[in-house]
Amino acid sequence: MVNVSILTIGDEICIGQIVNTNSAYIASKCTSIGLNVLLHSTVPDKKELMLAELERLAKISDIVIITGGLGPTEDDITKPTLCEFLNDKLEFHQPTFEYLKNWFSSRGREMNELHKTQAMLPTKCKALRNMFGTAPGMLFEENGKVFISLPGVPKEMKFIIEDSVIPFLKNFLNQKNSDLVLYKTIHTAGIFESDLAILIGSKSDFPEDCSFAYLPSYKGVRLRIGVNSKTFEEGKEKIEKIEKYLMKKISKYVVGTDSDDLVLTVSNILRQKKMTVAVAESCTGGLLGANFTNYSGSSDIFLGGIIAYSNEIKIDILGVEKATIESFGAVSEQTALEMAKNIKDKFRADFGISITGIAGPTGGTSEKPVGTVWIGLADNKKSIAKKFLFGDDREINRERSVAAALTMLFEKLNEFEK
Amino acid sequence: MVNVSILTIGDEICIGQIVNTNSAYIASKCTSIGLNVLLHSTVPDKKELMLAELERLAKISDIVIITGGLGPTEDDITKPTLCEFLNDKLEFHQPTFEYLKNWFSSRGREMNELHKTQAMLPTKCKALRNMFGTAPGMLFEENGKVFISLPGVPKEMKFIIEDSVIPFLKNFLNQKNSDLVLYKTIHTAGIFESDLAILIGSKSDFPEDCSFAYLPSYKGVRLRIGVNSKTFEEGKEKIEKIEKYLMKKISKYVVGTDSDDLVLTVSNILRQKKMTVAVAESCTGGLLGANFTNYSGSSDIFLGGIIAYSNEIKIDILGVEKATIESFGAVSEQTALEMAKNIKDKFRADFGISITGIAGPTGGTSEKPVGTVWIGLADNKKSIAKKFLFGDDREINRERSVAAALTMLFEKLNEFEK
Repeated sequence: MVNVSILTIGDEICIGQIVNTNSAYIASKCTSIGLNVLLHSTVPDKKELMLAELERLAKISDIVIITGGLGPTEDDITKPTLCEFLNDKLEFHQPTFEYLKNWFSSRGREMNELHKTQAMLPTKCKALRNMFGTAPGMLFEENGKVFISLPGVPKEMKFIIEDSVIPFLKNFLNQKNSDLVLYKTIHTAGIFESDLAILIGSKSDFPEDCSFAYLPSYKGVRLRIGVNSKTFEEGKEKIEKIEKYLMKKISKYVVGTDSDDLVLTVSNILRQKKMTVAVAESCTGGLLGANFTNYSGSSDIFLGGIIAYSNEIKIDILGVEKATIESFGAVSEQTALEMAKNIKDKFRADFGISITGIAGPTGGTSEKPVGTVWIGLADNKKSIAKKFLFGDDREINRERSVAAALTMLFEKLNEFEK
Repeated sequence: MVNVSILTIGDEICIGQIVNTNSAYIASKCTSIGLNVLLHSTVPDKKELMLAELERLAKISDIVIITGGLGPTEDDITKPTLCEFLNDKLEFHQPTFEYLKNWFSSRGREMNELHKTQAMLPTKCKALRNMFGTAPGMLFEENGKVFISLPGVPKEMKFIIEDSVIPFLKNFLNQKNSDLVLYKTIHTAGIFESDLAILIGSKSDFPEDCSFAYLPSYKGVRLRIGVNSKTFEEGKEKIEKIEKYLMKKISKYVVGTDSDDLVLTVSNILRQKKMTVAVAESCTGGLLGANFTNYSGSSDIFLGGIIAYSNEIKIDILGVEKATIESFGAVSEQTALEMAKNIKDKFRADFGISITGIAGPTGGTSEKPVGTVWIGLADNKKSIAKKFLFGDDREINRERSVAAALTMLFEKLNEFEK
């Protein structure tokens, strides 16, 4: 196995001001090509802590990928620290300087003295081009170990990972001729973990040796298969065998693999069927629509919707009967049914989805506690509504409502298949 | 200073399947009471890596906070590993067992053999109650060092942090009588970093010694002030002095501090003024509405909106003139203006906000490239619209559109003050 460590540099990450999303991105990219991610680590912009950490990680890993601290200001100390660690020094790098000159002039901006320091690079590094910023990535090979230093801005980091780092690492892996670790994740919806486990049965019956994990979330249960193999092809074959074996048992609940998600799967089915959807949202306030439009091309299947946050809007704009709300309340089966049917009719969609609930933390009653959500689904034949009782966390209730609505639509689309 | 390290346990974090949000939460909570967060670290569910990491962190920190690996299944090995590290053993813990019995019976669920193992605890630990799950938190004090082990499920972890850990740590800090490190963040909107820096001037003119950082994001530039002090009160005073000094220079652009965000600030101003808003969203597909309804009580100020993703919906439901779209296009000043005015009128709101743009990555033209977004804002006197040219990343374009729309409303509300 080829071991990777991921080191994040930055005070703002350390003190918890921002969430570290870079590590997960880099780890998933490394994992996707068969590298073994050993650990992640985050240290502040302090030289002695960075040096100690580089020393430790170099001992236990083949590859260390570092992000952050490459800006042009004084608090960015990754470059000098790497020089100290690798016994190197900064030198003016003409190609980077030319690149920066173009970068600024093509944006109609002046290059100042501070920007010029971005062209000072350690002599031992290979510069990795950065199309979205002024700090090039840097790659060092020292005593059989690889050190890669990238900017902390996610967009710049992601570009360099895709453009330079992954191609380099693939080649590195090939040359090492070492065991690969490969994973595949299967996403399910509409079934509990325990029921899924009964359907799947014992791991000892699997056609290949593998690691296997259940990862429940409110969007559904994910299944993660992991195999060791000599080559990418061998690993893929092993995973395919296991996947086929599993699909015989659970295909009905599978909504996608790896980076697919529920909304993408549902959207693709709608697109195949040339069908459209519109939404009527109360407690989610537009979150379901925002989910549908996360992906480019969603205009094929998503027409839009009405965010009916107040009762007046539910009545005046969405056309829910005033009597319905007065008799049953805004959070009720009847209101959910009318909302779903009306949005479908108004927007001339094939499906109307409605969400009305009490997201919390206030607004609950003993009869309708916080977390009560009614979700309606209407097509041209009939309307149905389901009641959910989620928890007391507003954000999670909203996310779960969206996931439940998508699952209802997924199940409805599956019904057509029968 | 009292130093804290944060250790996350879990294969799914290591391989990048999920983003580690726990570390940021714990770090921000520790930072808020004056602890110095030294570093974060993540290791997989492997005993030897966990032991090595515990050893290392114990050497350099006063407090180690660990999350993850406390479930009842075989792959959860934090408890036995902590026992090995602290030379302890697991023992049946009657109070935890009673607590679990109640926990299950109050939910109408049966307790199985696996659940019972959750009542086996290391003898040296103090159990920390967990109202949302079956794994209690654990607190160890050993040779003047503190080890705290918490479940990885965010909701459970957060509960124990608030309920037990922060009170304990406050007391610990008091007894240590050591220097505190305190931070305050000021959020600005509607001004570039460089212009802000000119307004603020040199740090050497500040009335107190402090650390000071600019943190730009597409939501605006954040300013972070950090001070060292003997007591909480002294630190607060120092920060207040600096804050007052800064406010004299930049108050116009300040939208909030610490955990406040732009939508909360705008919502509070609207609430004070007893004014309401409605939204007409195209490329953001409901994201602006979802932002307004993130916070409980938003029904005071947010009426709802129309997600008009297709041109037909813009015309038929939102009432944009067909001729407007045909002459100027859906992404145009004229369409944005009509959308904003119409949604305001239709929903009888004080403000109407519209967003129409090309989020990408497809759909751009040379005249209107990907990232072109028109944002409209209408009140009862007039309607305005601004053009933005963001980048080529769909997700970021949508987030930036929402931030820009909120900033426009913030600036409009500020105008009233004059």
